[in-house]
Amino acid sequence: MSAPNRATLWGRVLADELAAGGLEAACIAPGSRSTPLTVAFAEHPEIDVYSHLDERSAAYFALGRARRTGEPTALICTSGTAAANFHPAVIEASQARVPLLVLTADRPPELRDSGANQTIDQVKLYGDAVRWYAELPEPEADERKVRSLRTTAARALSETVGVEPGPVHLNCPFKKPLEPLEVPDAVPESFGETLAGRGRDGPFVETDRGRRTLEADADGLRSLTEALQTAERPLIVAGPADPRDLQELEPDAVVDLAERVGAPILADPLSGLRFGSHVRAREDPLIYGGYDTYVDALEDPDVVLRFGASPTSKPLRHALRDADARQFVVDPAGAWREATFTATDLLAATSASVVEGLLEVLDSGSTAETDTDDAWLEQFAAAERNHWAVHDEARTDDALESEPLEGAVLASVFETAPDPATVFVSNSMPIRDAERFGRPRAADLTVLANRGASGIDGIESTALGAGSATDQDEPLVLVTGDLAFYHDANGLLAVDRCDVDATIVLLDNDGGGIFHKLPIEAFDPPFTDQFKTPHGIEFESLGEAYGLEFERVEPHEFDDAYCESLEREGTQVLSVGFDAERSHRRREELAERVADSVDETRRD
Amino acid sequence: MSAPNRATLWGRVLADELAAGGLEAACIAPGSRSTPLTVAFAEHPEIDVYSHLDERSAAYFALGRARRTGEPTALICTSGTAAANFHPAVIEASQARVPLLVLTADRPPELRDSGANQTIDQVKLYGDAVRWYAELPEPEADERKVRSLRTTAARALSETVGVEPGPVHLNCPFKKPLEPLEVPDAVPESFGETLAGRGRDGPFVETDRGRRTLEADADGLRSLTEALQTAERPLIVAGPADPRDLQELEPDAVVDLAERVGAPILADPLSGLRFGSHVRAREDPLIYGGYDTYVDALEDPDVVLRFGASPTSKPLRHALRDADARQFVVDPAGAWREATFTATDLLAATSASVVEGLLEVLDSGSTAETDTDDAWLEQFAAAERNHWAVHDEARTDDALESEPLEGAVLASVFETAPDPATVFVSNSMPIRDAERFGRPRAADLTVLANRGASGIDGIESTALGAGSATDQDEPLVLVTGDLAFYHDANGLLAVDRCDVDATIVLLDNDGGGIFHKLPIEAFDPPFTDQFKTPHGIEFESLGEAYGLEFERVEPHEFDDAYCESLEREGTQVLSVGFDAERSHRRREELAERVADSVDETRRD
Repeated sequence: MSAPNRATLWGRVLADELAAGGLEAACIAPGSRSTPLTVAFAEHPEIDVYSHLDERSAAYFALGRARRTGEPTALICTSGTAAANFHPAVIEASQARVPLLVLTADRPPELRDSGANQTIDQVKLYGDAVRWYAELPEPEADERKVRSLRTTAARALSETVGVEPGPVHLNCPFKKPLEPLEVPDAVPESFGETLAGRGRDGPFVETDRGRRTLEADADGLRSLTEALQTAERPLIVAGPADPRDLQELEPDAVVDLAERVGAPILADPLSGLRFGSHVRAREDPLIYGGYDTYVDALEDPDVVLRFGASPTSKPLRHALRDADARQFVVDPAGAWREATFTATDLLAATSASVVEGLLEVLDSGSTAETDTDDAWLEQFAAAERNHWAVHDEARTDDALESEPLEGAVLASVFETAPDPATVFVSNSMPIRDAERFGRPRAADLTVLANRGASGIDGIESTALGAGSATDQDEPLVLVTGDLAFYHDANGLLAVDRCDVDATIVLLDNDGGGIFHKLPIEAFDPPFTDQFKTPHGIEFESLGEAYGLEFERVEPHEFDDAYCESLEREGTQVLSVGFDAERSHRRREELAERVADSVDETRRD
Repeated sequence: MSAPNRATLWGRVLADELAAGGLEAACIAPGSRSTPLTVAFAEHPEIDVYSHLDERSAAYFALGRARRTGEPTALICTSGTAAANFHPAVIEASQARVPLLVLTADRPPELRDSGANQTIDQVKLYGDAVRWYAELPEPEADERKVRSLRTTAARALSETVGVEPGPVHLNCPFKKPLEPLEVPDAVPESFGETLAGRGRDGPFVETDRGRRTLEADADGLRSLTEALQTAERPLIVAGPADPRDLQELEPDAVVDLAERVGAPILADPLSGLRFGSHVRAREDPLIYGGYDTYVDALEDPDVVLRFGASPTSKPLRHALRDADARQFVVDPAGAWREATFTATDLLAATSASVVEGLLEVLDSGSTAETDTDDAWLEQFAAAERNHWAVHDEARTDDALESEPLEGAVLASVFETAPDPATVFVSNSMPIRDAERFGRPRAADLTVLANRGASGIDGIESTALGAGSATDQDEPLVLVTGDLAFYHDANGLLAVDRCDVDATIVLLDNDGGGIFHKLPIEAFDPPFTDQFKTPHGIEFESLGEAYGLEFERVEPHEFDDAYCESLEREGTQVLSVGFDAERSHRRREELAERVADSVDETRRD
């Protein structure tokens, strides 16, 4: 390795070391101070570079890619507020445990707090939202410094995929020249040979921390097994999954476990368990998806085993809170992610290690026989049948023509999506409708959302970032409300610049439909002006600005338009208009109908 | 004051106290957790509320309004990444010393770090970028707590306009109910009467910190006066002004001072001194605007008096760095904003106090006579004449038709703007062209830019926020490049939602023209893909999405289109296309021509 000057040397060593550690992609926003990084990453043959013009969107794109792959993505910007624009996505990455390596170019130390242009305090800019922060040493052809640089780069990458995966921030001071201009004697020719690396493949320091190491211990597993086996009404709750925890989990093993202990699995749409080849025929589901409407009408569980983050479904969270049950929460990072504070046991272990461990204990025959009440499973099966019967009825063409139903769009999205497909769902109503209308299916659907901090921001970018990581034969579908679509409209530029195809389903109810769910609905003003916020944005023009095809679709024609878009190349926006208030009443009505039918069944 | 529940009580007390302290406007992004704040501010008769759907844009709008008025603007959002979206504008406010009061709603303490939805760590979220951070006590009808709340609100407002004005962050935890729902006994009826306030007008605690108190001391002023009077080549440099420092400064007094000590005033376009009734006829300018092209060709000053932040002009910064001069830097907050480290004296005092103090010392006749060399003033006057002659020549209709000139647009913008007008200029090339093409003029033009951190972000919003604060008869003009226009396109929604009219001049050279100024231009790839980044965005469609009129204008037709737009109601985008590379060469050519003519004049 050689370099015409110190800054270039630093950029090249960093790119080289990160690529050696397995980094495959970087999102870069243009800027001058970051030139040494941009040039080095762009010229590196093993790193794919995605160029973005809005740093906020860049960061969410990187987040989406890392979330889809489970592998770290780098994120590069110049000095100044550019770095602060990364902040929302850094927080989401932290809370959703997505590996992200943030490299912010900075002025050299002597120019900080001096009134120099585009210079802000970037030291620990993201506070506790990053797993690790380090300031790089100033570029210099010094052997110890280069070893330090390689070590820091290797360590940073490793920290993104540590026990609790997440973002890492390296602040990178550079002084001029920033471009690869020759500076005599800045980097002696002989220097490169000695310090290009180890002369072996792979990173400068091999680490064992690249994989999580928390595994359930034998005592904990035995105690849990006994609790599940002696339970009369055991329940498995699979909340939104951490991307790297999910990579190791065998869905078939979870189903196997559920069968042996007689527990239904309530599978959040983001759990990785609602969709996949492990999902059985509808008569004997085991994987349940409709519980949002009926869980509070059923008997309480007495033992709960919970994987993943806090469930999306509020009725489910409340049912767990109100149940007088022993509740085991599994968390691969040992965090206490349980906001009703009714958990009784925390297992700091990967989901896979818990499931495999439980199956081993069961296989060993060293514990009591399973003691489930058959009626327990049967009431879930009956309620689930009722749930889908009510929802199917509301989704017939005739029904939709007379009474449009927002959730029907989500139902179709999951029912009709090709196998495999990646489906990204925005927050607010789409994720809630995905929860209630997304029927479990034996198809390889990767369902993603930004549920770490559940923000309205970065939706298009995160989805397109996820789409950038999938094969050509795996389509990307994004379902978003109009406010989220507006919020990250800048992210649509990635369709062209980063060459990602998508079918974008825009549920347009001209404002914040979710506020109809809240008591503020009754206080107008300020309800309409400050909460619902109808805006009148012309989304067709917005799509045109970024060269997207735009189609207005009636609710009952959605299925056809959706199928057609999935088969077409390019990115289409399918805009389906709804009235938010009517949609809200309709959801309530259907939920009541399911609850009534469950009550009826239970009375029978 | 009464309230149906604790959260409502907190919102009302806050709004009441802040209004009593003089708060006049709040920017609010919709959300649920912030309901108590939103409702209270929206219903307060003395607070104007601006609703925004993208928190990043909301924050820049608030910044723009506060920058234009010099008075604090409040900024309200819900919990989660919403608050992180404020971060870029908070940093700009900090560095540009703009008073901003950020109120972030938060979950109550027991829900933090618990996996609860939309809950992030908001404690000290903006690090050292705020002047003060406080966490509000949890709402409760408790006398001491309410006194504490009023005191904290009064103090927060006062801190935004302290010695160093800037942003303040109050984190506001609320639990349900968030809406004004009646909760029996939550706020006893008798409670409101005793603690509504003091029963007098104004804030709960009157403060003296509301005005800056740093004033130059007599010794410092005498020493400075002597230095200026004994100087042969004294120079006054007025850099970008802090909004509140500028409010107190009398431009006529600065001119008076300059005359008496024989110093030219080099007035940055953002200094508040380049435009105004104090600007004299062109024969004897005293206020100079063309120095960017000629300052390095003139003799060095021997004494420099610098006001404001570091000048926008790089040639001027370098000339100051290279001069063997005594350099007095005046800073109202006593900060050391001088990044070439050649200042010899720092005066921690307001600009007004320094100017008035100097005039007093001069009036007292206690110091020596002024000793300026006439040739010193004459070389500036001659160079300034040459500068504008060269630029005028390049701006004739014929010249523009054969060779378009980006800077000519800026020249027209300032020359033709009505008196008064507010002109907001984006970073990158527009501010640099404003520097070089904005001719001093005896008209009340308020010229603004985001030069605290010089980011590309938030441009439309900051401009529209500034525009929201001006009278109907003062038009708002925004001049922006295409990348900045794209970056904050979401901010255009405020045209309709916040009812601000503007003339938006879009200098569209399809990418980052500024990179042609840098050595990276010679390295392609990656120059085009990663630096210049042509994007092909259809700005006409983007404008349509927000209901704006859009007009494509040829460079030589710009003047007519501009005048017409200024007279029309509504917001027009005037898009003028340029080739970035040609524009760059043209700027270089003109600068060389001025330098040559200055050399010639000096040889004569």
